[in-house]
Amino acid sequence: MTDALSIARDLIRCPSVTPADAGALGVLEELLNAAGFTCHRVTFSEEGTADVDNLYARIGSEGPHITFAGHTDVVPPGDESAWSVGAFSGEVKDGVLHGRGAVDMKGGIACSVAAVLQHLAANGGKPRSDGKGSISFLITGDEEDVSINGTIKLLKWAAGRGEKFDHCVLGEPSNVETLGDTIKVGRRGSQSGTLYVEGVQGHVAYPHRASNPVPDISRLIVAISDEPLDHGSAQFQASNLEFTSVDVGNKASNVIPGEARAKFNIRYNDNHTQASLRELVETRLAKACGNRIKARIVWEPSNSNVFVTKPGPFTDLAVAAIEEMTGRKPELSTSGGTSDARFISSYCPVIEFGLVGQTMHQIDERVPVADLEKLTKVYRGILARYFA
Amino acid sequence: MTDALSIARDLIRCPSVTPADAGALGVLEELLNAAGFTCHRVTFSEEGTADVDNLYARIGSEGPHITFAGHTDVVPPGDESAWSVGAFSGEVKDGVLHGRGAVDMKGGIACSVAAVLQHLAANGGKPRSDGKGSISFLITGDEEDVSINGTIKLLKWAAGRGEKFDHCVLGEPSNVETLGDTIKVGRRGSQSGTLYVEGVQGHVAYPHRASNPVPDISRLIVAISDEPLDHGSAQFQASNLEFTSVDVGNKASNVIPGEARAKFNIRYNDNHTQASLRELVETRLAKACGNRIKARIVWEPSNSNVFVTKPGPFTDLAVAAIEEMTGRKPELSTSGGTSDARFISSYCPVIEFGLVGQTMHQIDERVPVADLEKLTKVYRGILARYFA
Repeated sequence: MTDALSIARDLIRCPSVTPADAGALGVLEELLNAAGFTCHRVTFSEEGTADVDNLYARIGSEGPHITFAGHTDVVPPGDESAWSVGAFSGEVKDGVLHGRGAVDMKGGIACSVAAVLQHLAANGGKPRSDGKGSISFLITGDEEDVSINGTIKLLKWAAGRGEKFDHCVLGEPSNVETLGDTIKVGRRGSQSGTLYVEGVQGHVAYPHRASNPVPDISRLIVAISDEPLDHGSAQFQASNLEFTSVDVGNKASNVIPGEARAKFNIRYNDNHTQASLRELVETRLAKACGNRIKARIVWEPSNSNVFVTKPGPFTDLAVAAIEEMTGRKPELSTSGGTSDARFISSYCPVIEFGLVGQTMHQIDERVPVADLEKLTKVYRGILARYFA
Repeated sequence: MTDALSIARDLIRCPSVTPADAGALGVLEELLNAAGFTCHRVTFSEEGTADVDNLYARIGSEGPHITFAGHTDVVPPGDESAWSVGAFSGEVKDGVLHGRGAVDMKGGIACSVAAVLQHLAANGGKPRSDGKGSISFLITGDEEDVSINGTIKLLKWAAGRGEKFDHCVLGEPSNVETLGDTIKVGRRGSQSGTLYVEGVQGHVAYPHRASNPVPDISRLIVAISDEPLDHGSAQFQASNLEFTSVDVGNKASNVIPGEARAKFNIRYNDNHTQASLRELVETRLAKACGNRIKARIVWEPSNSNVFVTKPGPFTDLAVAAIEEMTGRKPELSTSGGTSDARFISSYCPVIEFGLVGQTMHQIDERVPVADLEKLTKVYRGILARYFA
């Protein structure tokens, strides 16, 4: 049973709503064990979060080492009665596989496992006919919620064992409309903070004895967010700062409040590091405050740094495999939200290529069986070129 | 017992913390009955508020009719152990009467009653020797809190009986530092509203699919509050608008919110009516919104219209009486917070003149006995000139 559809159905039938595993990792472990992989099940814990199971499986002991990363946990099904078929039934209707995780990303994992098993079978059970090369799987059950006991810890654990990764393919649903349209090669960084403005409380009838922080924080919000942070870079769209809330909480209509605060989030590109970005915003703030307004920013801790995999031999072979199988030249994109690739990027170059994301997180998440077959062929094409 | 100190002590000894009466109106009713006044005790009710007692007393049946207004309710004493003497003991220490209400405004009422009784005694028991003229008292127990079952209803009730007032003296503590420094001849109006800005909710990673109301409401706050509403008028300081709160309440740092709201309060002078003021702010808002920002203002109901008693014979005779008794020429002021004069102004010209306000609402509220005597003489001077 090494075809992607069978593996995807077996995975979907495990209701692994994050952080539950519900047998999903076991499905993969069994297949990979049988193919000669050395498998490790690793459970991570942290106070205040659920224990989460992870799977690391490797075949081969030398480089080059390509790893396929992914997650078997899924978001909740929502209103199950609204689904055309059972959310965890793995039913195929008119050539389309339905179920939670079909594209995000049990389908993607199934294709990578199927491709690897087919590649090994065609090469005498080895990554490369000469016996060199390694293939591994980094699979977590903690991606859809807090991402604390998942990939970030699994990578540290593997590094502690001396594991070295040369390249990584993360099978998240990267394509926007059609299989082959998009490879994700990076993500913007994310940084949040809170702006506090201190005024002097007083009675509205005596404004000269008070200092109202409401128009002052308004001026700062405009000054900080009106001017662009940059105009984009070679591989990224422009960085962007959004104020997500502004709050005072004063219910007394005759009182000028003493403080106002505003929360913001920045998505930033490779023109910045976290440190340079903070300095840029602080400088802009200081200028807008002048000697009059008393304001400060409290920055939140962030583990979402910007990263990018530069175009080169690895992206070239992925593009070539995709073009051959789909007839499309994919865009190397850095747009959109965050994923576990932000953690992997500290260890090796990573690209994201998987199914089409349109139905992810929705009622009736689904994938054409033909797409599963095509993605399997793309991954086989990547493996063939990687170990050529 | 027609001296102000005795009457003030009797009133302070009734712990009439708003809305309780605790016998305070009865003290006045007994004195006024004995002097020939026709007294009415009127109780007003409204769902959700306490029933409150009021007193209307009049002597004489013809004009000119001068009425003394006031309130016998007081704010709570706060920490009674912090007072030098009992908050309701009415004790005199070193020539100073202590007690809650000493200046706000049992002391003021005591002076007006003492002055009227002395004036009548000197004129054969009549307001004017020729038998014409009327003097009345409009006293409520509902001024310090919601002001719903007090002066506003007592005036309507009196109008319903055919009562016509020519002039009113409200004995609130109008003086800032020394008896004689200030007559209040008007108050700014007060108008509150809430500004709502409608955006389009979305994810911070995809700002082009959202419309962030936070910078937009910030722009509007600056545009509406930066430009003065006017530059003052003959008798008033400039009108002023203060934003008292701005709120979104969005806790998700990756979400652009769908709405923002800001509350404001305006204190306005006689350059405006309520209607013209609203139009001015709405016009300023529409200009700042242009075709892009979707915003609206919800105005709160207000019964605090601007009013002013123009300088003329009535203010002249009050000024003359004050100058004669205190040696000071009082300022005709329109500054500060609100009072029941805003209701009275719809029925007749009203001035506020009473004791010195410095200790009102504080621990150890107090008044020098000499001030009670001086204020009584000022009121006698007003009566003498009024009926001359």
